[in-house]
Amino acid sequence: MALRHKDLLGLADLSPEEIEHILEQAEAMREVLEREIKKVPALRGRVVVNLFYEPSTRTRFSFELAAKYLSAETVSVAAATASVVKGEGLLDTARTVEALGADVVVLRHPSAGAAAFLARHVKAAVINAGDGMHEHPTQALLDLFTVKRHKGRIKGLTVTIVGDILHSRVARSNIWGFSKLGARVRVCGPATLIPPGLEELGVEVYYQLEEALEGADVVYVLRLQRERFSEQTFLPGPEEYARLYGLNRERLRLAQPDALVMHPGPMNRGLEIAAEVAELDRAVIEEQVTNGVAVRMACLYLLMRRGEA
Amino acid sequence: MALRHKDLLGLADLSPEEIEHILEQAEAMREVLEREIKKVPALRGRVVVNLFYEPSTRTRFSFELAAKYLSAETVSVAAATASVVKGEGLLDTARTVEALGADVVVLRHPSAGAAAFLARHVKAAVINAGDGMHEHPTQALLDLFTVKRHKGRIKGLTVTIVGDILHSRVARSNIWGFSKLGARVRVCGPATLIPPGLEELGVEVYYQLEEALEGADVVYVLRLQRERFSEQTFLPGPEEYARLYGLNRERLRLAQPDALVMHPGPMNRGLEIAAEVAELDRAVIEEQVTNGVAVRMACLYLLMRRGEA
Amino acid sequence: MALRHKDLLGLADLSPEEIEHILEQAEAMREVLEREIKKVPALRGRVVVNLFYEPSTRTRFSFELAAKYLSAETVSVAAATASVVKGEGLLDTARTVEALGADVVVLRHPSAGAAAFLARHVKAAVINAGDGMHEHPTQALLDLFTVKRHKGRIKGLTVTIVGDILHSRVARSNIWGFSKLGARVRVCGPATLIPPGLEELGVEVYYQLEEALEGADVVYVLRLQRERFSEQTFLPGPEEYARLYGLNRERLRLAQPDALVMHPGPMNRGLEIAAEVAELDRAVIEEQVTNGVAVRMACLYLLMRRGEA
Repeated sequence: MALRHKDLLGLADLSPEEIEHILEQAEAMREVLEREIKKVPALRGRVVVNLFYEPSTRTRFSFELAAKYLSAETVSVAAATASVVKGEGLLDTARTVEALGADVVVLRHPSAGAAAFLARHVKAAVINAGDGMHEHPTQALLDLFTVKRHKGRIKGLTVTIVGDILHSRVARSNIWGFSKLGARVRVCGPATLIPPGLEELGVEVYYQLEEALEGADVVYVLRLQRERFSEQTFLPGPEEYARLYGLNRERLRLAQPDALVMHPGPMNRGLEIAAEVAELDRAVIEEQVTNGVAVRMACLYLLMRRGEA
Repeated sequence: MALRHKDLLGLADLSPEEIEHILEQAEAMREVLEREIKKVPALRGRVVVNLFYEPSTRTRFSFELAAKYLSAETVSVAAATASVVKGEGLLDTARTVEALGADVVVLRHPSAGAAAFLARHVKAAVINAGDGMHEHPTQALLDLFTVKRHKGRIKGLTVTIVGDILHSRVARSNIWGFSKLGARVRVCGPATLIPPGLEELGVEVYYQLEEALEGADVVYVLRLQRERFSEQTFLPGPEEYARLYGLNRERLRLAQPDALVMHPGPMNRGLEIAAEVAELDRAVIEEQVTNGVAVRMACLYLLMRRGEA
Repeated sequence: MALRHKDLLGLADLSPEEIEHILEQAEAMREVLEREIKKVPALRGRVVVNLFYEPSTRTRFSFELAAKYLSAETVSVAAATASVVKGEGLLDTARTVEALGADVVVLRHPSAGAAAFLARHVKAAVINAGDGMHEHPTQALLDLFTVKRHKGRIKGLTVTIVGDILHSRVARSNIWGFSKLGARVRVCGPATLIPPGLEELGVEVYYQLEEALEGADVVYVLRLQRERFSEQTFLPGPEEYARLYGLNRERLRLAQPDALVMHPGPMNRGLEIAAEVAELDRAVIEEQVTNGVAVRMACLYLLMRRGEA
């Protein structure tokens, strides 16, 4: 089986079979990561270009390592530097990157749709590493992979996503991913941070955290962007937010006894998640990071092998 | 044949035979780039240090990839970071880089002569990746290479360079390169942006774009640095500039029907070049980028092989 | 023999035997550096993560090259970028880096104790590449290595360290290193820049440079941080400092005729060291840089081999 699209732009575009296929490939990559020598020659001589127009060490490191473990060459540019200074448009950047011989371009960009725009203008495969408030597909894939490893399945699970759903590309991609694989998805947060139209996707919306947690198999806590508090007048302050929506040990008891606790990192301990909860064994936050490398190796590999078929 | 100098500082220093030699080597490297696995072991265990004191993603990526395709190790520092902050002088940086074991140092620096200064103080080969308003030799070499691939020769061609000739290291290097290989070089721009003394080099100076384009085989459009408009009082405004010197389809008709359109990138579409012209098949702007990697591979290889001979 | 600790945090923690062991390993690595092809497969597939929260091209390049010569994979983040922007705590960064599969983390951080904190929270080996005013162990190791290569021994030598001892992690680590290997250590500087308690470590404190230099085998000049002059009211101005504590040729005559002159770089010529002194044959400042790569290769190798034993 091969992926249908040349790019990985969002989970909205992937079929359940494609998602499962990536997760299976990630399983094989996870085994590579457990070896002492993690390097395999799968993508030797191929070029992965990382274009990060927003800062993100963890995601950039993850993609860089994924590429290096597969023996690909990588070049990276970090936000706020380089030709960004000259005001070069994304179109010209795209063409330059293509002309430089990139096989894959990994793009993080503050504008929704930037990755799709790039994808239309280059023959190289484009991986969306986060575009504005739109999607962050490799994050959702690593989350699915992590849940599947622990629970053995996605289908039938109850997954509760807590926080600022409105502005979160992580939430958006996870809603697509968990729904497509047959989980029951709940979201919970202040009314001002829930976008309209989720019910039409089959998502259950809660405003009370206690209700949303009831019987959940997975509790996915989003990072609260502190900067939103000053921007949005209809938001509770941080203390108020923590009081109403912070995941603490007491509230977590309402979920299944073996419910996984997940977070895309970095955490604001004491704000959206209590420190004691972040330290639980079933808080698999670091494992998400490890799985991120495996999932990104799988994506790079499948997209590049697709070109060969 | 080997290069005479240990460094590549400018096209003013190269003989026509040396330029031809680099272009031939670049042809071999271009073939490597067309392979699926682009990596060759030619410079395994050698070290290329990229010191970029001005931002430039495209040139840095190009050198990094060129080094990586040849299996060299690379370390890079981007502008405005690192010990630049501490105010370390170029001399100490040079010695440090030398002591770290660099075989080649690629330097971009805002001061004319910086690369030559560095070259005098290190045993490593220095490649000038742009020094102030002085030279940018690998840009000119890739431009020559691109023209030669399309036209089969340089000798006898008419090459028109349009724009801010005065401040352009790209223009300066190209004037040397095309002249040395026997092309007829014309420059065209506002009188305030044409340096004196060009006629002595055999260059024809025009102030009317229409006249300069008449029968040209290559039209080389320089990037207009928008920041110059505020600095220089004797300059026309951007709209005025576009009206007088912007390359549009109508004007291009004055050149040969198969005239190549070139630009060092990134373009200001609608300013120095019309969008419709940039999209023509004979606008070989992306091919210039690809050829840049091949030419830089050739330069790295020849400079390092020189040390062996 | 193996190192006792999983990390390299400071020379205060190393036994004389461990220090000697690292220096011997560095000798072997120095031989690798003299080969034409410097790359050896010792750490193939291992991952070195460089986290630099303070700018430092020379130290970062040195660690990156050391890792690359040993065939390890490296990913690096420079100061003031990446998730630092998001205010991610060092603890979460640590865990992320661990989860990404790092075998070694090289940390430079403005806070004393940052490396020790990191080391307690990760299984990976942590190398302190400078933590606030605390320690910079690989700098001291390369200094010891350089002295030993020239003098054949450390024991019994008189080593004079000149400058701002109070704020210098380089001084602190060198005091430990030279003392542990049996040298007689003198420090010299303005009274406001000498920390209390050095005599208890067996260090001799001088306020007159002439006295401190008398018969010295090694003169180690610290970099003067110009920014201190505005911060500290009890400091002499730069000219006054140069007049009282600058190492010039005349003063150097008071030391042994073959006394080595050392400096961690980058130098303020004419301030803490006269240009003519910096150019002497026995000013081994560039050799310190070269030896830095060998010493860091040795540290990376020994810490990673330790994990295997």
